[in-house]
Amino acid sequence: MTRREFEAVETEMLKGMQRSVHDTGHIYRVLYGALRIAATEPKADRDIVILAALLHDIGRAAEKRPGVGHAEAGAGMAYDMLRRAGWGESAAAHVRNCVRTHSYKGGQKPQSIEAKILFDADKLDLAGAVGCARALLFGAQIDEPLYRLGPDGLPSPGLPGEESSILREYNRKLKHLPEKMFTAEGRRLAAKRQKAMDDYFAALAKEIYSGYKKGAKLLSAELENSENN
Amino acid sequence: MTRREFEAVETEMLKGMQRSVHDTGHIYRVLYGALRIAATEPKADRDIVILAALLHDIGRAAEKRPGVGHAEAGAGMAYDMLRRAGWGESAAAHVRNCVRTHSYKGGQKPQSIEAKILFDADKLDLAGAVGCARALLFGAQIDEPLYRLGPDGLPSPGLPGEESSILREYNRKLKHLPEKMFTAEGRRLAAKRQKAMDDYFAALAKEIYSGYKKGAKLLSAELENSENN
Repeated sequence: MTRREFEAVETEMLKGMQRSVHDTGHIYRVLYGALRIAATEPKADRDIVILAALLHDIGRAAEKRPGVGHAEAGAGMAYDMLRRAGWGESAAAHVRNCVRTHSYKGGQKPQSIEAKILFDADKLDLAGAVGCARALLFGAQIDEPLYRLGPDGLPSPGLPGEESSILREYNRKLKHLPEKMFTAEGRRLAAKRQKAMDDYFAALAKEIYSGYKKGAKLLSAELENSENN
Repeated sequence: MTRREFEAVETEMLKGMQRSVHDTGHIYRVLYGALRIAATEPKADRDIVILAALLHDIGRAAEKRPGVGHAEAGAGMAYDMLRRAGWGESAAAHVRNCVRTHSYKGGQKPQSIEAKILFDADKLDLAGAVGCARALLFGAQIDEPLYRLGPDGLPSPGLPGEESSILREYNRKLKHLPEKMFTAEGRRLAAKRQKAMDDYFAALAKEIYSGYKKGAKLLSAELENSENN
């Protein structure tokens, strides 16, 4: 597509997104990640990849209504927006499919190579140090605690069966991100970033656990000492 | 103090705090950090340290009123709470002083060893992997972006003179945390945790910058290619 065509859709996307700097930063990271993956997939239609990346989250505002997933809502919005912008039925329908299957929650898996590229580029933004930041920012948004305390009053390791926390989200989902990818390049990029994430969450769990353990011991000693005097 | 005396103040603190899991997690990390620092300061009155740590953020709710700092508001609340709970004038006034000077923003520096311990324990919770998490969670709360874009459309490094972002907060403040400490043990613990934070922000800056740089180049090539065809 030409720069003018790109900018027309970009402008519509920016109008349609919530005015959150986090959200648009994500869009450009996904767009750039998708182009990097597409560069290794000669059969991929790059116009579709670009349009789908730009528009994949425009349904986010709609998600706040109960029962409406942002992927499904955004798919229809993307189709309508592209048709209004003069794109053909076939391109608009293809983008609609990509947007519909980019989320885990939608239930439908991506089928076309363009849909797989979008899915992987979106998940890639949950990998590495950027993924840590997004997990924490998202956790704050839904008021999720960083960790939970076990019955002994010490921080739990955040294993999959525990009550929800940001630490559990890492163990349950983010740790396994590279395995979820559909393209070889998506998997390679996610695996390359995984070390930064693993290092971060390991340091976090260690600091928290060791801080509570040493501190709680000192507190008990202090309080017991007073009882005995 | 006895366990019963501890639990009486703890209960009042929990009632007075906003019901946020993040806030109370911070209180216990500060309490435990303060006890670790106090263990290396034989002259410190551990009752004062414990009371000040438990109560240092009870003014947070008051901060939402314009012109009221949480340290100043919390200092008076802590004094009143302790007097009601039966603590003597001298202990309550000492805790009030510690709470008043625990924040950068108050303008007054901590004077007593107990006030220095509280200050350091509070800042220690901004160090390391926990500090990264809190910087991100706080950034989300005040709607601060992770990074800013420079005039070239690429992410800025977040240097002190730039527009505010979480990356700038690291370069401006969090990177220099160990130097701000008043006690030797506070400095030692902060320095020990610094590597996890430095590694994290270095990985973050690298991922973001390299992702934009490679992606923007692919996008330009793609759009220019279309112009020329």
